[in-house]
Amino acid sequence: MLRELTGFLRIPSVSTYPDRAGDCRRAAEWLCDHLTALGCPTVQMIEGPGHPVVWAESPHVEGRPTLLIYGHYDVQPPEPLEEWTSPAFEPSIRDGKLYARGACDDKGQVYCLLKAYEAVCDASGNPPLNVHFIFEGEEECGGHVIYDLLHARPELTAADAVLVCDMSYYAPGWPAVYTALRGLCYAEISVRTLQRDLHSGTYGGVAPNALETLVRILSGLKDAAGEIQIPKLYRAVKAPSKAELKGWKKLPFDEDEYLEREVTGKALTGLKGYSVPERTWALPTLEIHGIRGGFVGDGAKTVIPAHAVAKVSLRLVPGLERDKVAKWLQKAVAKLAPRWADVEVTMLHGGDPVEVDTSHPAFAVLDEAFEEVTGRRAVHVRAGGSIPIVPELGLAGAPVILTGIGLPDDGLHSPNEKLDLDQLWSGIQIFGRFLELFAEKGGAVEESEEEELEEADAAS
Amino acid sequence: MLRELTGFLRIPSVSTYPDRAGDCRRAAEWLCDHLTALGCPTVQMIEGPGHPVVWAESPHVEGRPTLLIYGHYDVQPPEPLEEWTSPAFEPSIRDGKLYARGACDDKGQVYCLLKAYEAVCDASGNPPLNVHFIFEGEEECGGHVIYDLLHARPELTAADAVLVCDMSYYAPGWPAVYTALRGLCYAEISVRTLQRDLHSGTYGGVAPNALETLVRILSGLKDAAGEIQIPKLYRAVKAPSKAELKGWKKLPFDEDEYLEREVTGKALTGLKGYSVPERTWALPTLEIHGIRGGFVGDGAKTVIPAHAVAKVSLRLVPGLERDKVAKWLQKAVAKLAPRWADVEVTMLHGGDPVEVDTSHPAFAVLDEAFEEVTGRRAVHVRAGGSIPIVPELGLAGAPVILTGIGLPDDGLHSPNEKLDLDQLWSGIQIFGRFLELFAEKGGAVEESEEEELEEADAAS
Repeated sequence: MLRELTGFLRIPSVSTYPDRAGDCRRAAEWLCDHLTALGCPTVQMIEGPGHPVVWAESPHVEGRPTLLIYGHYDVQPPEPLEEWTSPAFEPSIRDGKLYARGACDDKGQVYCLLKAYEAVCDASGNPPLNVHFIFEGEEECGGHVIYDLLHARPELTAADAVLVCDMSYYAPGWPAVYTALRGLCYAEISVRTLQRDLHSGTYGGVAPNALETLVRILSGLKDAAGEIQIPKLYRAVKAPSKAELKGWKKLPFDEDEYLEREVTGKALTGLKGYSVPERTWALPTLEIHGIRGGFVGDGAKTVIPAHAVAKVSLRLVPGLERDKVAKWLQKAVAKLAPRWADVEVTMLHGGDPVEVDTSHPAFAVLDEAFEEVTGRRAVHVRAGGSIPIVPELGLAGAPVILTGIGLPDDGLHSPNEKLDLDQLWSGIQIFGRFLELFAEKGGAVEESEEEELEEADAAS
Repeated sequence: MLRELTGFLRIPSVSTYPDRAGDCRRAAEWLCDHLTALGCPTVQMIEGPGHPVVWAESPHVEGRPTLLIYGHYDVQPPEPLEEWTSPAFEPSIRDGKLYARGACDDKGQVYCLLKAYEAVCDASGNPPLNVHFIFEGEEECGGHVIYDLLHARPELTAADAVLVCDMSYYAPGWPAVYTALRGLCYAEISVRTLQRDLHSGTYGGVAPNALETLVRILSGLKDAAGEIQIPKLYRAVKAPSKAELKGWKKLPFDEDEYLEREVTGKALTGLKGYSVPERTWALPTLEIHGIRGGFVGDGAKTVIPAHAVAKVSLRLVPGLERDKVAKWLQKAVAKLAPRWADVEVTMLHGGDPVEVDTSHPAFAVLDEAFEEVTGRRAVHVRAGGSIPIVPELGLAGAPVILTGIGLPDDGLHSPNEKLDLDQLWSGIQIFGRFLELFAEKGGAVEESEEEELEEADAAS
């Protein structure tokens, strides 16, 4: 298995780099070959203006539920190369961990699911359920081939459940299911104060400085205490339920260790009175990602910049739809813009927040599998980041199960990305067991149970 | 003469570009040849770690005053090239104006003085005074060859007066003498909040953002009304005299035209209650020149930057010495730095403000020359910018006369730099007459006059 997986990891399928398009295609072909070998009668490379989507259907089993499995075969760029202990695309095992770009995000997890399906088929002698596989090659570069595909063919998402295995345990030994993802509203704020840069000697004191104007707008968007100064924003937030908050309080968490080892800073910031999970999962944020303008080379050029741009984004929690927040941001910036400046806000990218209703019985089935293999049911957590495809995968009404076998220290998007091999081996067991149970119990509570529940309801 | 001058202007002596070092040397050689042709017995290229200084002494004339003439033969880079109507180093005459990089700053003005000296020698048959020429090749790139030279050989500045002809008329028809220059305190403010950039999804809400921290520090250094928030700063400013302010009020000035044609903005900024000359000449400024940090490429990278840097500078007016202000700036930044950030202020460059005492009779002599040729004496103005070499030129005690034949719309440092040929021809007359008068009256009021003044004082 390690020989197989490392073959997959050796392919440098960096979707962002145009000259890696051939490698992305090779990774897609690797998956097609593998899915064919697993006995899928339908295996397709679906082309679009970017890297292809791999679509496969297992042999049809009448009367059994259908699971749609999502993953991605593309990876983040490996840079900075010099910080890798072993090269990013030469997988290396040290101390029970497999180091390579994509080891966890997401090739290792995709491989784990393929092996789980294979194991279940072998064990029962026949495929016990219907599995549809959809693997894209643009998750890391924001392409839209899969979006176009799902909009053109929404029937592809028709399933009893969707499994997105691109996440992590909450902590070692603590499997997790994600109940919400934050959305994103990414914008550029552009400020022009002059037709051309001016000399700060001659005009300093009277000429409006675009960078200074931008700085004042940015500092006006959030106060010193970290509160975003967009009216209505916090009022629109749908607060987590009491049960959810209670669950978060029970999670193992050491703030000092988190600050030192994960955040690598001197102090945490954020709204007072809210815990770290609340600040990262249940509250919106406003971050400045970059500022461009003026002179940033070596030396001391004394220019009054005519033009400056900031890249900013808000993370959005349930209650905050992207389009609504985009309008609020534009209004807030316009209000802060002084009369001497032309200020524009351009939306670049985004997505709505996601809420997952975990009452669907597929989640109970997954918990059973987790408990059997790890001794612990999944904790319900949220993710601060966004997976924009999630709402699309749920369009046909199937519950989307967000889970995974990663660990928090896997170094996704960073040098020395790794996958703990124990997580892989137990992951194959977990998802194998999940497929077995899901094949039996399906996407719906069994009729008899449902009737019992109805009867109970009627009696109460 | 135009053939001569355009030959000088054709040499692309851009001192900032290392691969133009040979051209800088060619420009220095051009000057040496010219000074030798003018009959100077001493003509030297003085070498240092950069572009050479040209030093020349006219034939010694016993009993006559000595004038030190300063200029520079290097020029600013010509970029952006596409904005030039005719190429920067192919001088072109259109509508009585000579277009070329360096046409005004400072080759044209240097040439004007050489021709004035030549004219005076021709007219009187013999050199009527002692002229020392010092021309540097690093004025535009901040080199220190001339500084090292003047510190090693301070006797070079021993003269009855120093003439720096690198400035402009206040307006067409309004010759000017500059009574003060602003100094400069240029610094980098560096902020580190994390050991590495973080993902804004995962850590947004708790991880301190270096750019946001920098933005808050920068906006704390100046309030929305434009007042710099450095305690003591404004109190230390030596206000211009009533006579000076009165003189500025009489200057022709159209604020709307200034805003539209020079500043090219929608509105002026700056401290309320102060005129444009006061804001640009007599008050300190704080400008942000550039900000570096985070992601500024195309697209929507969602990074929380660990590190950010701003380039800022203060312009300094009399009363504000650079070293004192540098300390105040460091203190102000330290006070604004939050506990989660490591903040450093690094001084890059600077110079003290300059005040010129125009009571020295050499100024009256220049006024006489201006009046004879243009019909108007020089107005006393200031410059918002800095010429760091000025204090060094006055070290031996000679008055430094800051003047010139440029016009405000000459486009120094910009594309399509030009010199009005009428300014050149009248400039040769003005400085020729100045040399004649200075040769007669010298650097000191004649003894008889001085006695008369003393007698008048005693009588009053």
